[in-house]
Amino acid sequence: MPLGERGGDKTESRYCGVETEFSDDMPHVLAFNLSSAGFDFVIAPLMDPAYRPSLVQKDIFGSAVLPFAGSDLVLSPSQWSSHVVGKISPWIDLDSEDEILRLDSETTLKQEISWASHLSLQACLLPAPKGTTCANYARCVNQILQSLSNVQLWLRIPVVKPDDDSIVANSDTLVDTWEIWNSFRLLCEHHSQLSVALDILNTLPSENSLARWFGEPVRAAIINTDSFLTNARGYPCLSKRHQKLITGFFDHSIQIIISGNSVHPKAKVVANVSHNHSGTDSQRHPLRPYLDYVGYLYQKMDPLPEQERFELGYRDFLQAPLQPLMDNLEAQTYETFEKDAMKYIQYQRAVCKALLDRVPDEEASVKVTVLMVVGAGRGPLVRASLQAAEETGRKIKVYAVEKNPNAVVTLHALVKLEGWEDIVTIVSSDMRCWNAPEEADILVSELLGSFGDNELSPECLDGAERFLKQDGISIPSSYTSFLQPVTASKLYNDVKAHKDLAHFETAYVVKIHNAARLAPSQAVFTFTHPKPDKESNQRYKKLQFVMPNDTGSAMVHGFAGYFDATLYKDVHLGIEPSTATPNMFSWFAIFFPLRSPICVDPGSTLEVNFWRCCGPKKVWYEWCVTSPSSSPIHNSNGRSYWVGL
Amino acid sequence: MPLGERGGDKTESRYCGVETEFSDDMPHVLAFNLSSAGFDFVIAPLMDPAYRPSLVQKDIFGSAVLPFAGSDLVLSPSQWSSHVVGKISPWIDLDSEDEILRLDSETTLKQEISWASHLSLQACLLPAPKGTTCANYARCVNQILQSLSNVQLWLRIPVVKPDDDSIVANSDTLVDTWEIWNSFRLLCEHHSQLSVALDILNTLPSENSLARWFGEPVRAAIINTDSFLTNARGYPCLSKRHQKLITGFFDHSIQIIISGNSVHPKAKVVANVSHNHSGTDSQRHPLRPYLDYVGYLYQKMDPLPEQERFELGYRDFLQAPLQPLMDNLEAQTYETFEKDAMKYIQYQRAVCKALLDRVPDEEASVKVTVLMVVGAGRGPLVRASLQAAEETGRKIKVYAVEKNPNAVVTLHALVKLEGWEDIVTIVSSDMRCWNAPEEADILVSELLGSFGDNELSPECLDGAERFLKQDGISIPSSYTSFLQPVTASKLYNDVKAHKDLAHFETAYVVKIHNAARLAPSQAVFTFTHPKPDKESNQRYKKLQFVMPNDTGSAMVHGFAGYFDATLYKDVHLGIEPSTATPNMFSWFAIFFPLRSPICVDPGSTLEVNFWRCCGPKKVWYEWCVTSPSSSPIHNSNGRSYWVGL
Repeated sequence: MPLGERGGDKTESRYCGVETEFSDDMPHVLAFNLSSAGFDFVIAPLMDPAYRPSLVQKDIFGSAVLPFAGSDLVLSPSQWSSHVVGKISPWIDLDSEDEILRLDSETTLKQEISWASHLSLQACLLPAPKGTTCANYARCVNQILQSLSNVQLWLRIPVVKPDDDSIVANSDTLVDTWEIWNSFRLLCEHHSQLSVALDILNTLPSENSLARWFGEPVRAAIINTDSFLTNARGYPCLSKRHQKLITGFFDHSIQIIISGNSVHPKAKVVANVSHNHSGTDSQRHPLRPYLDYVGYLYQKMDPLPEQERFELGYRDFLQAPLQPLMDNLEAQTYETFEKDAMKYIQYQRAVCKALLDRVPDEEASVKVTVLMVVGAGRGPLVRASLQAAEETGRKIKVYAVEKNPNAVVTLHALVKLEGWEDIVTIVSSDMRCWNAPEEADILVSELLGSFGDNELSPECLDGAERFLKQDGISIPSSYTSFLQPVTASKLYNDVKAHKDLAHFETAYVVKIHNAARLAPSQAVFTFTHPKPDKESNQRYKKLQFVMPNDTGSAMVHGFAGYFDATLYKDVHLGIEPSTATPNMFSWFAIFFPLRSPICVDPGSTLEVNFWRCCGPKKVWYEWCVTSPSSSPIHNSNGRSYWVGL
Repeated sequence: MPLGERGGDKTESRYCGVETEFSDDMPHVLAFNLSSAGFDFVIAPLMDPAYRPSLVQKDIFGSAVLPFAGSDLVLSPSQWSSHVVGKISPWIDLDSEDEILRLDSETTLKQEISWASHLSLQACLLPAPKGTTCANYARCVNQILQSLSNVQLWLRIPVVKPDDDSIVANSDTLVDTWEIWNSFRLLCEHHSQLSVALDILNTLPSENSLARWFGEPVRAAIINTDSFLTNARGYPCLSKRHQKLITGFFDHSIQIIISGNSVHPKAKVVANVSHNHSGTDSQRHPLRPYLDYVGYLYQKMDPLPEQERFELGYRDFLQAPLQPLMDNLEAQTYETFEKDAMKYIQYQRAVCKALLDRVPDEEASVKVTVLMVVGAGRGPLVRASLQAAEETGRKIKVYAVEKNPNAVVTLHALVKLEGWEDIVTIVSSDMRCWNAPEEADILVSELLGSFGDNELSPECLDGAERFLKQDGISIPSSYTSFLQPVTASKLYNDVKAHKDLAHFETAYVVKIHNAARLAPSQAVFTFTHPKPDKESNQRYKKLQFVMPNDTGSAMVHGFAGYFDATLYKDVHLGIEPSTATPNMFSWFAIFFPLRSPICVDPGSTLEVNFWRCCGPKKVWYEWCVTSPSSSPIHNSNGRSYWVGL
């Protein structure tokens, strides 16, 4: 049964598994571990551990039967697929020096996965590579993956990352096991059916090093009973750092699996008494206390905040950015964005401050400020501006300029409904070609994309600033884009699934969740309004990210992009993680993928170049990495991705 | 006029160019440098060097004329395209910190290349990147390359590679300029219209470091007059190392260009006197003595040996390997291979030694040796065997087994023509299923591909060894494949031109010429005949190549493969470069490409894994790199390239 209920959370991390020994009585294995103990699934060996292909006497009629754990008929198809993960024989060693062992391993691996596939198991657990080299293992798994239907392969990887001192002392024996995983998955080309089951040991490496795994396709975390501590009452519990890690797993759809023997015998006895089970509970599962503890950790998590619950369905789901200039937005889109109260509160605060700066108290009753909302949509910024005027007691005259004729319909209805006819003039025109009858004191716009300028705010405001007074104010007064390198294998694989170049040269709007942020984000392009004389909207920026030393090596699948806008003076609005405006949902991050992920070493510098290029009909970005090695330049001439003017 | 004639050599390196100053009198430039001085082409600036876009007063009617060197009409189209290489303004600096200079550079570069394209020039010479960073330069060139028709862009790169000591002392200022080239071409994705013009300075780096360039797309080498020495008579000449390098350029279709001012004024005077030109030769070209010297170097080269002349047309031309087992060879193919005298001489020597070992002199007249030629083709090995019998005075009985019914026709005719009916029995059968009437003493076969086992000699001989006596001899008695990493941008680009995965996972037979061999070759798979009990024909080998320290970094585009076969005892046959049998042309090398070229650092280890995999219907190779980083596994399950059984 699931570990518990958590508001909004329907991910797989609610289920907990248990690793079992080989048994050919599978119905008993399920009854004992699931029905009576409460685990949700078992990791069970499929093949007698004594089997070695080279020792089998070849029957001349070819009628030898492989020693699998029961026939497919001993469980129902849904029992096999919902409750059993196949555990591949742990003795296999595809990279052994011993050729017979190597060939036996290859044969067995292929037979077992073929059997698991026959049973429609959802996953198989592959034993960890034995040494630091895994090329033959990966070659064999890769061959299997080429024609494997639906079965996921979970490669077991112990979480070990020696700190720098121990590497120097013991360079041959201690390795960062992430490196082994990385080599394996590169050899298998990031295959989407190859993922990771982490073995959690009793010591944990650094936070940064652990964080890498949240960008990798980790499906399960196996906690051996040895890794548990004992609390004052004799029960198993985990260290604070382990608890935090497990909570992280819950939050990233990673299932927990308990493994090993009970090393807390006292817990069993006490449990029987304290829970007051029937006296004949001789079948009480020895690992039940560990499951109970994991369930306790699950249940004590805070419920998901409303914003995150709303965003749950969007996690790591790639969307093409809007093209609000070329396309007209639909009513549903306006509806969604208008609900973002926080955004309009910030705009109102900014307009208030601008009005107060523009009109001293003594002129409040006589001076009328001309305020133009350019890109008025269905009117939320008009409303925010009018509320700011009311709040500050300033008089304003509003022009609401909107190019989408459908939104203009709604604007007219709104003005009539609210009785704003005397204050608000609606203009159905593209701001870039409107001939304004007078100049504006304040220009209010919200043309920002996830990456700031990516919905062409600079080009639109170039047009609108024609009718801004010399000393007029633009809200926003500036905006800056930000980038940071991320490990994001899910996003990378989703891009790769399209099997073309164009998708690798496109930026996506996405709620980035299963990702590791490898370094603090850095500012990229800044636009200031009104804009300095003759400044072009083209930009070029080179960024250098220094990888933290304690992370270990990591894979960069691309760059997460954000923006921060200064609306007016100290009023800002943005999604850059370290300064993000809280409770705002109008913008997810943007993701710029890399065609070939780049591996960065600890302490090394990742150098990235971004360009904003402008043509007569379109604006586009190009990007490339130049250190540690040079990538191709992505999206040359905007061949794959551009924003239309 | 060309530098001279060299038997068989029709490559572009016969032509020599000269770098000129800006002049808007192009007819005079050609007359002075070509007609009167004897150069074949000029490298001429296209644009007035004083031009800067940002300084041009923008004419409101847009009628400003760019200051190009003359209109397109001042030369004929064929003069422009055959005799002029456009020299892009050397002041451009796309990676300057100065934004105005950067934008001016971009505008000028685009205008000049557009003009060159309008003139149908064959090439433009791009100035060397100014610093160690070139991302913006590469981005701009890459944009141009996306829609550039026919014009080649030669990026000027001075040949500088500091030795290890100077790097430590001066890491900021001295760089290996190959690294700059490498970054530039990676950013431009190995574009086939982007190549190199090397600037040859008066000091040269190490041999290994220079050798790298022969695998890169170098089109021209520019020798400044400063790099010349002065001989006893006051004439310009070059150091021995420079001479050797220039000869290498001639041999790799790289054109020489003379640049700079005459620094040998004496040569001019002496030339006038000694050559007894007309007294009024005031127009004598100051660089003529340099051209004469280059011509002298060209003419003193040895003529191409006959074998190389034969192979000239095959240089760097990718061919699919033969599938002689699945397909039947054509008469033309037999014809070509039978002409390879050296191969049959070696076989005859091997058969001689085997016959002498098998039959002592005292039994020579009575003992008949049963010799089977398996894969007899049109009979050359039958002939070699009979000649060996005659040479040694041994009696033999020959079975000629051949599966190609067309070749069997010729075999019958041959036996009749030569009167061999009593000695030779022709068997029209696949050796793998023939029921031999008796067992053989000696099995002779030549089923070798460029990579030894790649034409399935092991599988064929598995079948044939059924009818070899327990103590019988197989000729060949063993064969081994070899591999070495190579820089081979031409081959890489030709593979890439197919724009699919399959061609990157295919091995090619090719006369590898424009390539840099980065480390000595190493043995891969060995097959021994008769074969040890129960040995499989599957193989796995991990190779580690250590890169020489003085090479600098280098790009590995793939692996060159060879074989060496031991026919019998000390008689061998092979194409591995260090032990190759001379004057043999039956086999070119084999080339295994890498999907993504891998850059290797000096002194680092390149680890490569090769597998020979066997299925019921086919045999194939898989390969991957695991150090310095892991590549994908190429050709999983033989999906792209295999040899049919």
